[in-house]
Amino acid sequence: ENTFDLTAHPHTRLNILTGEWVLVSPHRSKRPWQGKVESPALVQRPAYVEDCYLCPGNTRADGTKNAQYDGPIAFTNDFSALLADTPAGKVDEDELLIARSQKGICRVICFSPRHDLTLPEMDLRDIRKVVDLWHAQLEELAAVPFIKYIQIFENKGEIMGCSNPHPHGQIWASEDVPMELEKETRQQRNYFQQHGRSLLTAYLEKELKAGERIIAENEHFVALVPFWAVWPYEAMIISRRHVQSLLQFTDAERDGLAAILKDLTTRYDNLFETSFPYSAGMHQMPFNDGEDHPEWHWHMHFYPPLLRSATVKKFMVGYEMLAHPQRDITPEFAAARLRALPVVHYKQAGV
Amino acid sequence: ENTFDLTAHPHTRLNILTGEWVLVSPHRSKRPWQGKVESPALVQRPAYVEDCYLCPGNTRADGTKNAQYDGPIAFTNDFSALLADTPAGKVDEDELLIARSQKGICRVICFSPRHDLTLPEMDLRDIRKVVDLWHAQLEELAAVPFIKYIQIFENKGEIMGCSNPHPHGQIWASEDVPMELEKETRQQRNYFQQHGRSLLTAYLEKELKAGERIIAENEHFVALVPFWAVWPYEAMIISRRHVQSLLQFTDAERDGLAAILKDLTTRYDNLFETSFPYSAGMHQMPFNDGEDHPEWHWHMHFYPPLLRSATVKKFMVGYEMLAHPQRDITPEFAAARLRALPVVHYKQAGV
Ligand SMILES: O=P(O)(O)O[C@H]1O[C@H](CO)[C@@H](O)[C@H](O)[C@H]1O
Ligand SMILES: O=P(O)(O)O[C@H]1O[C@H](CO)[C@@H](O)[C@H](O)[C@H]1O
Repeated sequence: ENTFDLTAHPHTRLNILTGEWVLVSPHRSKRPWQGKVESPALVQRPAYVEDCYLCPGNTRADGTKNAQYDGPIAFTNDFSALLADTPAGKVDEDELLIARSQKGICRVICFSPRHDLTLPEMDLRDIRKVVDLWHAQLEELAAVPFIKYIQIFENKGEIMGCSNPHPHGQIWASEDVPMELEKETRQQRNYFQQHGRSLLTAYLEKELKAGERIIAENEHFVALVPFWAVWPYEAMIISRRHVQSLLQFTDAERDGLAAILKDLTTRYDNLFETSFPYSAGMHQMPFNDGEDHPEWHWHMHFYPPLLRSATVKKFMVGYEMLAHPQRDITPEFAAARLRALPVVHYKQAGV
Repeated sequence: ENTFDLTAHPHTRLNILTGEWVLVSPHRSKRPWQGKVESPALVQRPAYVEDCYLCPGNTRADGTKNAQYDGPIAFTNDFSALLADTPAGKVDEDELLIARSQKGICRVICFSPRHDLTLPEMDLRDIRKVVDLWHAQLEELAAVPFIKYIQIFENKGEIMGCSNPHPHGQIWASEDVPMELEKETRQQRNYFQQHGRSLLTAYLEKELKAGERIIAENEHFVALVPFWAVWPYEAMIISRRHVQSLLQFTDAERDGLAAILKDLTTRYDNLFETSFPYSAGMHQMPFNDGEDHPEWHWHMHFYPPLLRSATVKKFMVGYEMLAHPQRDITPEFAAARLRALPVVHYKQAGV
């Protein structure tokens, strides 16, 4: 008990991608729970739902009728948080009240015409089509001169504020580079300038040698629980090749991305035998800012809230909001559990 | 529609206390909601509950029997995230895996022996006793040489991960100054060095002149929705006098703090006629770090999740986690609503 041990003693860990800290309390996982319990989401949904505004052929909020689509589709969000025609302007009252206008474009991506599927339940071939659509959208949005950053993401599950269970993700593209990306750019740039290679190349090398935080790997991608993970089963997909964005992936890499996505999300569903909620999204280089960003290394974050079961989640509340994030189970424990799970989806396992 | 308008157009605002940005989408409040709806918490609880480990005379998880207390009490958390005897140590593998041990002390503060009360429902005199207990705890913990920061906070409501409805708050005191406090120290120090007075003195002056974000005020404190608020009904209590910590408040100021706490939390409960959930906590100077911190100005943050009603909350998910926080209603709209509410608690209004 007298030497410091990451698996037993409270400690803080540094997120090298953002420069921020997380408090880890490994001894605390035995805490009893008398608090809020989530009601598990409905187990089986129908393939088509008449009043779902994302199902093929149905009418959306703005009156548009969806096509009878049979693969993934993208369209402008009817309730976009960012709009392309926002007039330019700023406020600065004595450096105390500071604001600036923000132009942008928000898209919705339906992953599948089927209302009852999610990524882990889709065929590899169909996930690959989603990857291709992300690619096409990225290309299109990066060609809009005022767009500096394109955030591709998915909120999965009611508990993650997903407003419709039809499998879908979103893209929010903005005039400014958002804060998290500013942090990751700064940290990656510092490392690249000092070491001449990308931060995530070096980090991945170390993780592959250590092994204890690896969840899954294929020829092109690795899924792992980062050393500084905040959420109980947080994960990151890192491309083995140092590329700045999805636009640079080869055909084989796009297949590899589809495969690692299916692998990771299947393990997630199998962990508590539930449709595992998360928010996930890619981080990649900013566009149209006059820089090459050789420091940037494409990766994807998964932030799932569940802690102990399908109904008990981790709350990022008081101390976490006011001081810094805190976690109970260690990243190493989480990785070991995810690594040990089967890669056949539990719903299909008996079949 | 052609000139930039903070009440109509998407924009970002700077949090001058942390240096971070929030995206505001004022036009988006009409968005329909088909997503998760919270079940409202039980309306009336009994004054004493046999299996509540915080009620007077009951036995706690570690076997301790609570006193038959009649005012607020403090004791060490049975499931402390930080422990006083953690051995010192650190990890640094090539600047990629970085961790350090963290000593600390965690306390629980029961606000009242009554299981059925919350701050807004307590008498002013009894809230003042809570203020005095916070003061005594702060004094005691600041006298522990290894403690650098003392975070006093409350998670209220199931939705905020509160594990027991008995009215209580917490104190987590740590060996290092947590991240949010590092940010606020840096920003306040920069301002103080340049202008010779505290950032919040200047900010408060501006807000009092503008009026539109003020919720309530008394002789010693002001409650307002900060210009950069992230949560829909986020609020801040700022002391009119520039003091570094709760330890410096006069007797009259302690009364004033009790009064503004009752005022703000009553308005919160009245907003949706529900026991309004939030995480709240004080921010004040670090201790025992060899500095005087003349820049520090005591304040208290309230982060409540509800957006439209007792059952529809704001989700800080995908975009918020991956890019930066986003809000729909403006801080000015939120302040106007809170300002217009009665200061008599809705449960007591008919009486
Ligand atoms: O200590 P409690 O009330 O059991 O736990 C609650 O507050 C803590 C501090 O904000 C959080 O880390 C927990 O996730 C939350 O459930
Ligand atoms: O756009 P949606 O799915 O309606 O909304 C969801 O995702 C957004 C982006 O993360 C969040 O701002 C909302 O709080 C959330 O409910």
